[in-house]
Amino acid sequence: MGLTVSVAGASGYAGGELLRLISGHPHLEVGAVTGQGSVGAAVGDVHPHLIQYADRRFTATDPAALAEADLVFLALPHGESAAVAAKLPAGVKVVDLGADFRLADPVAWGAYYSGPHAGTWPYGLPELPGGRDAIAAAERVAGPGCYATTITLALAPLIAAGVADPDDVVVVAASGTSGAGKGLKPHLLASEVMGALMPYRVGAHQHVAEIKQATGARSLSFTPVLAPMPRGILATVTAKPLGDAGAARAVLENAYRDEPFVHVLPEGRWPHTGATLGANTCLIQSTVDVDSGRIIVTSATDNLVKGAAGQALQCANLMLGLPETAGLPVNGVAP
Amino acid sequence: MGLTVSVAGASGYAGGELLRLISGHPHLEVGAVTGQGSVGAAVGDVHPHLIQYADRRFTATDPAALAEADLVFLALPHGESAAVAAKLPAGVKVVDLGADFRLADPVAWGAYYSGPHAGTWPYGLPELPGGRDAIAAAERVAGPGCYATTITLALAPLIAAGVADPDDVVVVAASGTSGAGKGLKPHLLASEVMGALMPYRVGAHQHVAEIKQATGARSLSFTPVLAPMPRGILATVTAKPLGDAGAARAVLENAYRDEPFVHVLPEGRWPHTGATLGANTCLIQSTVDVDSGRIIVTSATDNLVKGAAGQALQCANLMLGLPETAGLPVNGVAP
Amino acid sequence: MGLTVSVAGASGYAGGELLRLISGHPHLEVGAVTGQGSVGAAVGDVHPHLIQYADRRFTATDPAALAEADLVFLALPHGESAAVAAKLPAGVKVVDLGADFRLADPVAWGAYYSGPHAGTWPYGLPELPGGRDAIAAAERVAGPGCYATTITLALAPLIAAGVADPDDVVVVAASGTSGAGKGLKPHLLASEVMGALMPYRVGAHQHVAEIKQATGARSLSFTPVLAPMPRGILATVTAKPLGDAGAARAVLENAYRDEPFVHVLPEGRWPHTGATLGANTCLIQSTVDVDSGRIIVTSATDNLVKGAAGQALQCANLMLGLPETAGLPVNGVAP
Amino acid sequence: MGLTVSVAGASGYAGGELLRLISGHPHLEVGAVTGQGSVGAAVGDVHPHLIQYADRRFTATDPAALAEADLVFLALPHGESAAVAAKLPAGVKVVDLGADFRLADPVAWGAYYSGPHAGTWPYGLPELPGGRDAIAAAERVAGPGCYATTITLALAPLIAAGVADPDDVVVVAASGTSGAGKGLKPHLLASEVMGALMPYRVGAHQHVAEIKQATGARSLSFTPVLAPMPRGILATVTAKPLGDAGAARAVLENAYRDEPFVHVLPEGRWPHTGATLGANTCLIQSTVDVDSGRIIVTSATDNLVKGAAGQALQCANLMLGLPETAGLPVNGVAP
Repeated sequence: MGLTVSVAGASGYAGGELLRLISGHPHLEVGAVTGQGSVGAAVGDVHPHLIQYADRRFTATDPAALAEADLVFLALPHGESAAVAAKLPAGVKVVDLGADFRLADPVAWGAYYSGPHAGTWPYGLPELPGGRDAIAAAERVAGPGCYATTITLALAPLIAAGVADPDDVVVVAASGTSGAGKGLKPHLLASEVMGALMPYRVGAHQHVAEIKQATGARSLSFTPVLAPMPRGILATVTAKPLGDAGAARAVLENAYRDEPFVHVLPEGRWPHTGATLGANTCLIQSTVDVDSGRIIVTSATDNLVKGAAGQALQCANLMLGLPETAGLPVNGVAP
Repeated sequence: MGLTVSVAGASGYAGGELLRLISGHPHLEVGAVTGQGSVGAAVGDVHPHLIQYADRRFTATDPAALAEADLVFLALPHGESAAVAAKLPAGVKVVDLGADFRLADPVAWGAYYSGPHAGTWPYGLPELPGGRDAIAAAERVAGPGCYATTITLALAPLIAAGVADPDDVVVVAASGTSGAGKGLKPHLLASEVMGALMPYRVGAHQHVAEIKQATGARSLSFTPVLAPMPRGILATVTAKPLGDAGAARAVLENAYRDEPFVHVLPEGRWPHTGATLGANTCLIQSTVDVDSGRIIVTSATDNLVKGAAGQALQCANLMLGLPETAGLPVNGVAP
Repeated sequence: MGLTVSVAGASGYAGGELLRLISGHPHLEVGAVTGQGSVGAAVGDVHPHLIQYADRRFTATDPAALAEADLVFLALPHGESAAVAAKLPAGVKVVDLGADFRLADPVAWGAYYSGPHAGTWPYGLPELPGGRDAIAAAERVAGPGCYATTITLALAPLIAAGVADPDDVVVVAASGTSGAGKGLKPHLLASEVMGALMPYRVGAHQHVAEIKQATGARSLSFTPVLAPMPRGILATVTAKPLGDAGAARAVLENAYRDEPFVHVLPEGRWPHTGATLGANTCLIQSTVDVDSGRIIVTSATDNLVKGAAGQALQCANLMLGLPETAGLPVNGVAP
Repeated sequence: MGLTVSVAGASGYAGGELLRLISGHPHLEVGAVTGQGSVGAAVGDVHPHLIQYADRRFTATDPAALAEADLVFLALPHGESAAVAAKLPAGVKVVDLGADFRLADPVAWGAYYSGPHAGTWPYGLPELPGGRDAIAAAERVAGPGCYATTITLALAPLIAAGVADPDDVVVVAASGTSGAGKGLKPHLLASEVMGALMPYRVGAHQHVAEIKQATGARSLSFTPVLAPMPRGILATVTAKPLGDAGAARAVLENAYRDEPFVHVLPEGRWPHTGATLGANTCLIQSTVDVDSGRIIVTSATDNLVKGAAGQALQCANLMLGLPETAGLPVNGVAP
């Protein structure tokens, strides 16, 4: 079909995953591939797994070059998307994988981020009520964060249905290391990570505002944990029930019955992050805690796919009038 | 000093860890070393890391042979301790690493375990108020479970001090695979575990009654997660505050100021399970969630040491009149 | 195009990987899906990552049902392929992923395997000289083993070109655990594997005969190692040079210049098994040892893809007159 | 006994391991603890597992402060030991964990290292013939490298006994990531390492000269591999036999019969790096390759213990007149 997409920030993990997914997409070709510290380097030096693009070279993040495509993915560090987006002409569609345009409320923005609030774009989670249509109609879309995606898919239908109390939500979520990016930080060294778990930014993570906005939660306790695996998020969401806790599972089943990428598992089976590896899939299971009566929902995604690049591509498909599922694996790579 | 200890069930992971720790103990010698499926096998075939005992052979779990020691460790499968213990003469001290004698309430027992309630022994967590003295005075002690230890150390002082609401506690805790033992189960195969997280027995784990008894919690939501590492537990305990949430950290610091094995970390540092590997150490950090105001306490242990064999040895030291810390490493093996 | 393939032994790791690849194949549909211990179970219970087939059920390995397809993949335990293949009518094409039909020499068979020699089918390694044509013309093909594939691609061109001495080859190759299958063996438990390396069947592995046959080596020292990762093989092949050792790299480059799945890396880059995850790709690099002058070739594959299911599908494409690369990922899933 | 040892470079992995081992040593106390980038930092911030030293602070690497101890360990980056050692007075004993003083031959030095050859100290491998006495008599000792230790223990007795041909040795050895230190390099990030193997410096590693010197090998092909585990080295050493290959195993058994730290395993058991974790132990097994007739010896160590800090402490014990095994664990921490 001759549609072209360009990727700004393609030397990072989310950018590399975009390239991988685009390589298997039946209707898209890759245009500009930009990277900051990697300008001039071969893709194969930075992403040795991307055999098909091994000889391409990263160029500078030049808005004019990016704008030659039908759609631009921005996979840039926090705070850099706004400046690039501002220089892209109106006719060019944009999906931003960063946080710059996710929040509607400037006060919420100011509570968690530094710098001015850049603005608000439609939120790129197609499975939310109205999400799909809003994305399809948009020129610019803000892709959700990986934690926010995994938690929102588990929780939003329950709050919307009045089954879960939005004033008492507790979330503990563990992520693989690719969620932290490629920064050279001591705690991300393999020697430190392998064989161990560690919480971080406990009770103060910058994605809290986004999760509250997307789920409707009014009080959210959030503890993120770094897990010894390259990819994957497992979220454990517990909420105080309003009315019949046992209704929660049916609410989730109804919400996702026709969704291609979100699956409520049969009873007795729990989400395994390994089952989502490389796939744009979210697996969900729910139960009622025997002792406390709280609703417990667990959900699993691949943070780089449904949590980042896959979801961005799902949005791009909608924005470009392509089949929503084009180029997006549903089956994970396991074991 | 010529004291001898025997180990029933020494072919399992907890039993092997007991042997490792005893090998470095200045006052103890190993007596009978028994194992069921492994009778006749060399220790070196089952535990290739136990070089010093490589040529010893496992014998059958014979109470008479076990009773030749000053103290017997029972590291047997669930439900087997009671029968063996009943055959040990009154003068022989016993530390049971299983669940048989942990619960005081037969009703609570019946809710989570099959079979009759065997009875109640003093609970082997020296750091609980009065725990140390009760253990020192006991002939028989029930060693706590690994999850229960890690969660109780994080939570019990807060409930006792009236800072945390016992009616609203949510715990998510992830464990390394050795906590599941050596059973040949498909979900414990390396291919399935590596690179992935999976919850299990969500909202219905059999240790809930023990945790409630030990912490004083009246309502407990508990989600256990299997993590891709051989050892370690990271517990995230959140509780609704009663009064000043900010007082929680000081309560924990006061509770453990003089404890050799439980350490509240300086602010800004979070527990890393890797730092406890091989050590009888529990690391704790606490904060107040910015959004929800809940108290969040995270704690880390090595499930086989402070969560099993190390704690059992700590109890044995008390029961035998030895220094409580003898033979127990405080520093972990890292990275 | 209406072509159908059936998979015998689909409950194993290689069988599951066949299903995953077929799900992304543009010209193939899945017919019978059989499994032995799993008859009647849902695919989703055995392979939770295969979302698209989650509700299908494994049937018994019935030759009549298998034979309704255009091609049958046999992913059966060692020694079971011959019996099933004998019952498949002549018109049905077959690719066997097991060892039964790989060896031409019954004496070599007898040296490494028990049971009678079932016969010899064309060897399913398309990149060998003449391999592609022989496979395309065959009704039945014997898919190579994972070690054999990885080692042969590194070594065969050098022996064929007279650059490497076939009488002095030393190979050490490490494999992820999925290569050992799903058998419930103690040394495959996650607790035993994570964080550790262990050699096995040193100097006596049953694939030696196959590797010698495929490479032309006359003397082969082979040490396999079990590595703490679910997938991937890294082979280190060293050979005494005949003539100019420095010519080795050019020989490999020439051999694979037009191959879609085998890539000699640019100098300075070494094969990383992670870069092949989920892809039908073999990465190769070669150098001359500074001290000894030996040729050292290292090669990396995903043992379940180029080492098993992907290669079988590559053969099937050739046998069915489809594009050889159809449905076969080239880019790995990383990090 | 009042002996004090100081550690220069204590903020690195080998330095941290020295502190861990010294904490369990019955006769030694820690003196100065120096670190370069970490001067002023608490030990607990850099090594969270070293609970007992958590509140100590790293000081600058000042020779005068170091010299107040009975013995100084130098765990410094390559090339920095010589300058510090030159400023330590003659009466202070020194064990260097770096490469500066290992090589006897300045030409060999120049072939693998930059900078002038600093000199030659006795080689700190007590298990070599004469090694123990030379170390005990020395004021300054050069601790062997981790690869060199693991390979030399497997090979040196065979060459000395005339059983292995020194002109045809091929070694492939895989190491955990702590062997690469704490440098912030992209290929050492957890996301890159977990789940994957990668060779590096193939056929050109700087330890080749040291291994040849220590083993007597005249031609050595050496391929190092980075493995997804924090600790451990597994070396596969193959050599062409001279005379009866089958004699190799007995030669090794005789060489190490009375050694406390080097163990030739019973036949049928292979070295598992996990069994050496945290221990000053080397496990060895040997066989004759069925096809090639080559001798294959595999050996496993913990690279930070017998490969670095443990061996340095073993040397220090000899130099200080202490029992050679004091403070050195023999049993590993497993699983």
